Amino acid sequence: MTNEETRRARAAQVVKELKLDALLVTSLDNVRYLTGFTGSSANLLLYRDGSANLFTDPRYTVQSKQQANCAVTIVKGPLTKGVTTAIKRARVSRVGFEPDHVNVARMEGLEKALPKKASFTAVAEGLIAKLRMVKDAGEIALIRAAVDINSKALDAALKRFKVGMTEAALAAEIDYQSRKLGADGPAFDTIVAAGARAALPHAQPGTAKITPGMLLIDIGAFKDGYASDMTRMTYVGTADAAYKKAYAAVLESQLAAIAVVRPGVTAAAVDRAARQTLKAHGLDKEFVHSTGHGLGLEIHEGPRLGKSDKTKLEPGMAITIEPGVYREGWGGIRIEDTVLVTDTGYEVLTPTSKVLREI
Amino acid sequence: MTNEETRRARAAQVVKELKLDALLVTSLDNVRYLTGFTGSSANLLLYRDGSANLFTDPRYTVQSKQQANCAVTIVKGPLTKGVTTAIKRARVSRVGFEPDHVNVARMEGLEKALPKKASFTAVAEGLIAKLRMVKDAGEIALIRAAVDINSKALDAALKRFKVGMTEAALAAEIDYQSRKLGADGPAFDTIVAAGARAALPHAQPGTAKITPGMLLIDIGAFKDGYASDMTRMTYVGTADAAYKKAYAAVLESQLAAIAVVRPGVTAAAVDRAARQTLKAHGLDKEFVHSTGHGLGLEIHEGPRLGKSDKTKLEPGMAITIEPGVYREGWGGIRIEDTVLVTDTGYEVLTPTSKVLREI
Repeated sequence: MTNEETRRARAAQVVKELKLDALLVTSLDNVRYLTGFTGSSANLLLYRDGSANLFTDPRYTVQSKQQANCAVTIVKGPLTKGVTTAIKRARVSRVGFEPDHVNVARMEGLEKALPKKASFTAVAEGLIAKLRMVKDAGEIALIRAAVDINSKALDAALKRFKVGMTEAALAAEIDYQSRKLGADGPAFDTIVAAGARAALPHAQPGTAKITPGMLLIDIGAFKDGYASDMTRMTYVGTADAAYKKAYAAVLESQLAAIAVVRPGVTAAAVDRAARQTLKAHGLDKEFVHSTGHGLGLEIHEGPRLGKSDKTKLEPGMAITIEPGVYREGWGGIRIEDTVLVTDTGYEVLTPTSKVLREI
Repeated sequence: MTNEETRRARAAQVVKELKLDALLVTSLDNVRYLTGFTGSSANLLLYRDGSANLFTDPRYTVQSKQQANCAVTIVKGPLTKGVTTAIKRARVSRVGFEPDHVNVARMEGLEKALPKKASFTAVAEGLIAKLRMVKDAGEIALIRAAVDINSKALDAALKRFKVGMTEAALAAEIDYQSRKLGADGPAFDTIVAAGARAALPHAQPGTAKITPGMLLIDIGAFKDGYASDMTRMTYVGTADAAYKKAYAAVLESQLAAIAVVRPGVTAAAVDRAARQTLKAHGLDKEFVHSTGHGLGLEIHEGPRLGKSDKTKLEPGMAITIEPGVYREGWGGIRIEDTVLVTDTGYEVLTPTSKVLREI
């Protein structure tokens, strides 16, 4: 079986357990996961026997046949008609749908076009996403490749850094190096935030010139669809004692969180470890987001390493660990690695050093 | 009034006409359009008097205050609670929502948390998108800038082209040049498709080396949030007579479609002009998509220049005109400009020549 067939078999098992005849998959990432198809318009009917039918539009006639190893239906116009016609032909009646991946208007259209004998049932939110949390060997290899590209791109771009360069120019340089190293593209908008702008956890690189002071760089690469994620602080010039102290506290927090990663531990426990360490330094109030997130076909996947996520870590999960502190007017510090949960604990995939780099 | 205030006033007028007290805006692009806020997590309550309340999470505490000139509420956890609490406090009862921008699960959560006296009403799909179709002067200036970057990036990248370069490397070069010219980033995944791969209208640049033959390049740039879109064919080496003939037919079709653009003409009429011209050359069956689309904050906006879109063109609409023909095993030809509808007709914004470029 191909990876996709194995995944479809697992998903079909869930469909069976839910006593559904089929599941309508509308999340593009889930469709890709289950078929390999990467087009921007697709639905999938996954039947309880593991067979599947992909629906896409004529732009993807050639590509869908090349990528998906299941039945493909090319639909002119909205995909709804193709989907409901197939439901009719297959004579299935109980069809699940992903309530977190269909908008209200589309659902209304689907309901209207559905044959009378059939009905839609909302499955649990994140049903397929849950299957996706544990990565198979092929997925881990791609995440490793994406992590590797990310680290090499940062090094290559920083070699080209000069004081006075704009944030946007450095971001462009990182993305270019990443692509030259084989990335599909950035996994999210590259963040390059200098000085006080580092106080914005999701800063957009601007035309501001990078002058001596702190510099936050948060980057990710997609490699054959799979994401990596890394944040590093560099210091342009020589860091002062106060900055070094704060940096050391965040690093201590990040290492403390990594240290608790192992199968059976909850995502919340990892978050707690990061938060408690910052609290000991009086910095927990300035840590305004969760400690990390799973990643894979999406840059943000489950589990969420936050206060209330009780998901137990399992071998094969790929997560980020990224505590940070932010202070308006001063700046921010975040340190982030991509980490794999292993049978016995963890493996930090990101090879880039966390010794504060002064450039 | 700022641009955003003017837009909110127009949107509030629609809210009033629908006899609603407020509209819950959940599309991020619509939130950006109405507030200027560019974060990745946001909802907006737009009240009938034109006042507005933005909801986002703590990652955007600083940024939201800088960007949005309306009330901002920072919500820890899901935005739903912040939104429904505000609805309660404002004592409004009839709240519209965007059925094409809320998923079924989120809507259920919103309904549950809503105060008893209030209710949600689905507004028409694309309600705000319709307002966005006609661009104001500031938006047109940004689209012009995005178009300009796109054309310059293509020229700069082609100067660096060498036979044997991979599709992916040329795509990376284009994106890099575009960013150096001031783009936020690509408006969509850059398409570089050589030879028979040009038959895939949405090809992903691969590791295939570009050898003599046809080369399709479809690129877009975002500039301060606004998109451009252009496709050009180049020919590596000397084009043969059959290719030149097909190229001339597509160009004739593209020019014919542009020629009918003027206020009052339907989007469908523009599509028809392109299609009829290709039919005269026996190529209409190989034209498998619509003739174009509006663009702005999104790369695909209304109107859709397809068979059934009866939207009448209005001055200030920015659209693409991009007929193409595709033949499996042979390749494809598409020619695309970004075009502005003016008071008297049209202005082709894209400055790049459409004379077939042999490189």
